[in-house]
Amino acid sequence: MQNEKMMLEIQQKVELIERAAQAGTGIVEIGSFVHPKAVPQMADTDEVARRIKRYPGVEYRVLVVNKKGLERAGAAGIMKAKLTVSASNSHSLSNLKRTPEEVIKGFGECADYAVAHGIELSGAISTAFGCPFEGMVPLEQVMKVVSCFREMGVKELSLSDTTGMANPRQVYDYCLGVREQFPDVTWNLHFHNTRGMGLANVLAGMMAGIKRYDASFAGLGGCPYAPGATGNIATEDLVHMCHEMGIETGCDLDQSIAIGRDVQKLIGDDRGSFILKAGKCSDVVCS
Amino acid sequence: MQNEKMMLEIQQKVELIERAAQAGTGIVEIGSFVHPKAVPQMADTDEVARRIKRYPGVEYRVLVVNKKGLERAGAAGIMKAKLTVSASNSHSLSNLKRTPEEVIKGFGECADYAVAHGIELSGAISTAFGCPFEGMVPLEQVMKVVSCFREMGVKELSLSDTTGMANPRQVYDYCLGVREQFPDVTWNLHFHNTRGMGLANVLAGMMAGIKRYDASFAGLGGCPYAPGATGNIATEDLVHMCHEMGIETGCDLDQSIAIGRDVQKLIGDDRGSFILKAGKCSDVVCS
Repeated sequence: MQNEKMMLEIQQKVELIERAAQAGTGIVEIGSFVHPKAVPQMADTDEVARRIKRYPGVEYRVLVVNKKGLERAGAAGIMKAKLTVSASNSHSLSNLKRTPEEVIKGFGECADYAVAHGIELSGAISTAFGCPFEGMVPLEQVMKVVSCFREMGVKELSLSDTTGMANPRQVYDYCLGVREQFPDVTWNLHFHNTRGMGLANVLAGMMAGIKRYDASFAGLGGCPYAPGATGNIATEDLVHMCHEMGIETGCDLDQSIAIGRDVQKLIGDDRGSFILKAGKCSDVVCS
Repeated sequence: MQNEKMMLEIQQKVELIERAAQAGTGIVEIGSFVHPKAVPQMADTDEVARRIKRYPGVEYRVLVVNKKGLERAGAAGIMKAKLTVSASNSHSLSNLKRTPEEVIKGFGECADYAVAHGIELSGAISTAFGCPFEGMVPLEQVMKVVSCFREMGVKELSLSDTTGMANPRQVYDYCLGVREQFPDVTWNLHFHNTRGMGLANVLAGMMAGIKRYDASFAGLGGCPYAPGATGNIATEDLVHMCHEMGIETGCDLDQSIAIGRDVQKLIGDDRGSFILKAGKCSDVVCS
């Protein structure tokens, strides 16, 4: 939601989150604990966290950028937090006015706080495949950031194609590379469909053995600090492809589509979702 | 162009075809020789064929549905023709008012004519993965149609996902299946991006060893007889993905984008091309 001009009310957020959990989403990112001036759409995440009904087996996660965010997470009973750092120096400077190394140094106190308070930390590495300021980001650079996260004790990491610059061959190579180097990490992938390669990149990631993928209902998303960034791959498109391929996701496709449709109504705009436009394969069969 | 309401002038078609050839397109489908009442946009294909400058190494192909079409091809000096049959009975009836078997029977005299006049025949099997009337089309049904084509002596065949219902696992399985059963056939794949899986399906096809893919500039296309069908994958998106992956296509990406942009202007509408919206990966790098 952070790229949308309109603001959802707390109760609207709560309903969407509860429906996402009911639809079988394994991890629901309910918002971020960042400074409300930086992302005003997320200023009410504390209250959202307190109000949502928690479903067993569902992980509720927030994005944080520092220890203060973690404190807010703990106070709101959210026991899983995601720290984000850009793999690209320029992108990190543009986004947070600090280099990746400086950002990661700042995470040290987060790690201590998380251990002391039972909060599970995950890490997201943005612009992991390409950066609008630097072009292709080399795997070695990504490895450096992964190393820092591992040294902090973070065992769940996401490689994010923040600006839709990844291609399937690169995804396959990078994923094999990081899995080989860091076999004890649980990997997530995060793709945007900016250049039409979103689901192809998922396919490449699956072939490299990655089982967890971020997506957003109706294909919402983007990055306010990355020029040209467009929405994430749509949850309903991803679930649809997986189910068509016979891959179990745990998600209910019809519920996912219904949520996507309602998100689209709330935003009042047509996003990058294909299934919301075309319907499921099984829908179009007319006899 | 056959799904567009507006009609291009002959000279506009000629220019687009010549530019496509100059951009490195290996096979340019310049139009169809079908009854002008069925597809009025293609009524001038004879004249287009006569006017275009022929570039060496480029194959110029037309779509035909019967011997009359082949005669027109021969008269216009087009020595490569594509015969289309639907793998699905219902789709074939809706499209041509004949079953696939009846359509293929009618091709017998085409084969004789083609051999006698030195015209190379290729075959396209539409709804090869799914059909809006019947749902998923079984591989066995596709194999039957392939067998008929092979008995006629056709050695170049395309599997077409006419309504965007194919998924990558199915593409991989079907392609391995037909390649194993018919190792002497040169295979093409033809995808629509209706449900976002277009480029993922290309990836699956490449993994199954298929090297030839149809695409249309700006993502034009569709099938007037298939409910819910949308445009083909865009040439510029396909070339872009391949080049990003380090796969040589023989196509000039910038020229392809320029053609796509002009097609979009001619049509006066925004189609399914991603690269025309987002630019190449290398374009967005700003420093």
